[in-house]
Amino acid sequence: MLLVTTHEFKQLIQQIGLSQFTSQLINQLEKDFSRWDTFKKSPRHATHYPHGVIELMPCADDVYYSFKYVNGHPPNTEVNKLCVAAIGQLSEVSSGYPLMLSEMTWLTAIRTAATAALGAKYLARADSKKLAIVGCGAQAEFQLIALASVLPVTTVYYFDIASAAMRKFEKNVATMQLPRLTLIPASSIDSCLEEADVVVTATACKSRQQLITSANLRPGMHIHAMGGDCPGKTEISRCALDASKIFVEYLEQTREEGDIQQLTDHSSVVELWKVITKARPGRTDEQDITLFDSVGFALEDYSALCLTYRLCEEYGIGQSIDMIPELGDPKDLYVGLVN
Amino acid sequence: MLLVTTHEFKQLIQQIGLSQFTSQLINQLEKDFSRWDTFKKSPRHATHYPHGVIELMPCADDVYYSFKYVNGHPPNTEVNKLCVAAIGQLSEVSSGYPLMLSEMTWLTAIRTAATAALGAKYLARADSKKLAIVGCGAQAEFQLIALASVLPVTTVYYFDIASAAMRKFEKNVATMQLPRLTLIPASSIDSCLEEADVVVTATACKSRQQLITSANLRPGMHIHAMGGDCPGKTEISRCALDASKIFVEYLEQTREEGDIQQLTDHSSVVELWKVITKARPGRTDEQDITLFDSVGFALEDYSALCLTYRLCEEYGIGQSIDMIPELGDPKDLYVGLVN
Repeated sequence: MLLVTTHEFKQLIQQIGLSQFTSQLINQLEKDFSRWDTFKKSPRHATHYPHGVIELMPCADDVYYSFKYVNGHPPNTEVNKLCVAAIGQLSEVSSGYPLMLSEMTWLTAIRTAATAALGAKYLARADSKKLAIVGCGAQAEFQLIALASVLPVTTVYYFDIASAAMRKFEKNVATMQLPRLTLIPASSIDSCLEEADVVVTATACKSRQQLITSANLRPGMHIHAMGGDCPGKTEISRCALDASKIFVEYLEQTREEGDIQQLTDHSSVVELWKVITKARPGRTDEQDITLFDSVGFALEDYSALCLTYRLCEEYGIGQSIDMIPELGDPKDLYVGLVN
Repeated sequence: MLLVTTHEFKQLIQQIGLSQFTSQLINQLEKDFSRWDTFKKSPRHATHYPHGVIELMPCADDVYYSFKYVNGHPPNTEVNKLCVAAIGQLSEVSSGYPLMLSEMTWLTAIRTAATAALGAKYLARADSKKLAIVGCGAQAEFQLIALASVLPVTTVYYFDIASAAMRKFEKNVATMQLPRLTLIPASSIDSCLEEADVVVTATACKSRQQLITSANLRPGMHIHAMGGDCPGKTEISRCALDASKIFVEYLEQTREEGDIQQLTDHSSVVELWKVITKARPGRTDEQDITLFDSVGFALEDYSALCLTYRLCEEYGIGQSIDMIPELGDPKDLYVGLVN
């Protein structure tokens, strides 16, 4: 099987380019969401602790089985560790044998942003130019790259309660060579959203439960809400939800984890794949307020791992490791071990 | 994190010795089953296909989180692949970071046998000398080693519908240097069980659903039933179940997967940990027929991975791999990837 370490994943991204990889992943996601019914889906398996959560996220069709191991430990950053770290595995369904084991911390950041872009492509107004990013943590740059690839973004408003995070974002965007982009720092969430066509909420803090209220909404806005992503954690106020057309990845999971956990009736909530396949309308009016309550779904990891596997094979990246015994007689496990 | 490939796991076993490793694992299992309530438990996550199954088996306490990826594909052996192959991961709960990724095909075989031995230690008559092994596939030798370490086994009756499997078992046992052991090949399941004190059913075939009936049972027998281990797959007849005191690992999982899926009332079924902690009696009479309906539970993988991790550290076995980005600023994921 193929081992893709952080070193090798970086190599892959540097060879392909992050924007190009992100665009390819948006396409892959679109293809995979279009064949939603061919996947075996389940809500992720979460183990909760007072200081964090550890999750397993499996998804499969009849060819590949993928899963991701991922944690979420906000206190980690205090000891110079990542809040979210992940490892993914892709296997072939025919034999059940693993094909690839990959770093998935960076890949998760990219797939999360690519999912935002897929949502915005179908739900935001096509002429959306002004992007607001609320929360300038690990996700912010990836979101900008992904959204700018599907929308004609010219202006980015950004806000974080930590000014260091805003400085970090500015510094990184400066290296991106996006000459026509205007960056406008905001001093509050309210001012950050004032002019926005598309809003991304990318904060990790459990204590901020009403980041966006109906007062922040303007006709035609698209909100990509990522912050409400586990039971008891929400970011969008109830009245803001009521004012929006709500879309989700996978209702069975999102109704427990997403901002819509605040709602008792989910009958008007639409799964994004239905919009992509034209089974249900998305935005029907320029004045609609659309909200993608995106919690992160295992199918996105499936798409990300399939793309990574294909590209690693193509570019000859990754090491071969022997994790499954190769035996002369597959029924003679014993002799392979002791001889 | 530590990577333990098949090559390195073999190295570990050859350094410690398979019998010694198995004994250590039986002890570890006993300790972990004794603190049952300290674990976060759930039935495994299974994805079924017509030709096989792929499972994720997580288990955790407040220090370690473990999971195993494992498949079960009976047709694999026709193309010289293993029916069951597995990979395991151990993580630290404090940060959610992975500590070790290990081969787990061999480790699963050992932990499955060690679990049988733990059950037999508490449920079989202490003077059980005659062991019957029904099914001489990949598990047979591991079962013998494990059971012989907890019971005064002098005679092994064995049977398999494939005579090649019986020859393989004989050949392997001959290399084990067990001079006082008498091996007696049987020509049928009935004759294999005729004299047995302890019976292990270790077959993988889905079509044999009544391997052991009440006619095979004798007072004082202990049956370790491993074959009924997924919905729709059973090996022990209903009347044989009715004649036995039944023990399981984790009722919530076993009632769906084990031979007890045939029963509608599980109120008399006892979880093994209760016997180990003396909360419930096991065998109360020499004449009791006991049956451990063992389907394989994630806690056993937890124990196996913890032991392997400790021994690999102690013996300096395994490679270091970089699967999680190490960043100057853990909130600046972007710069770590593109620089």
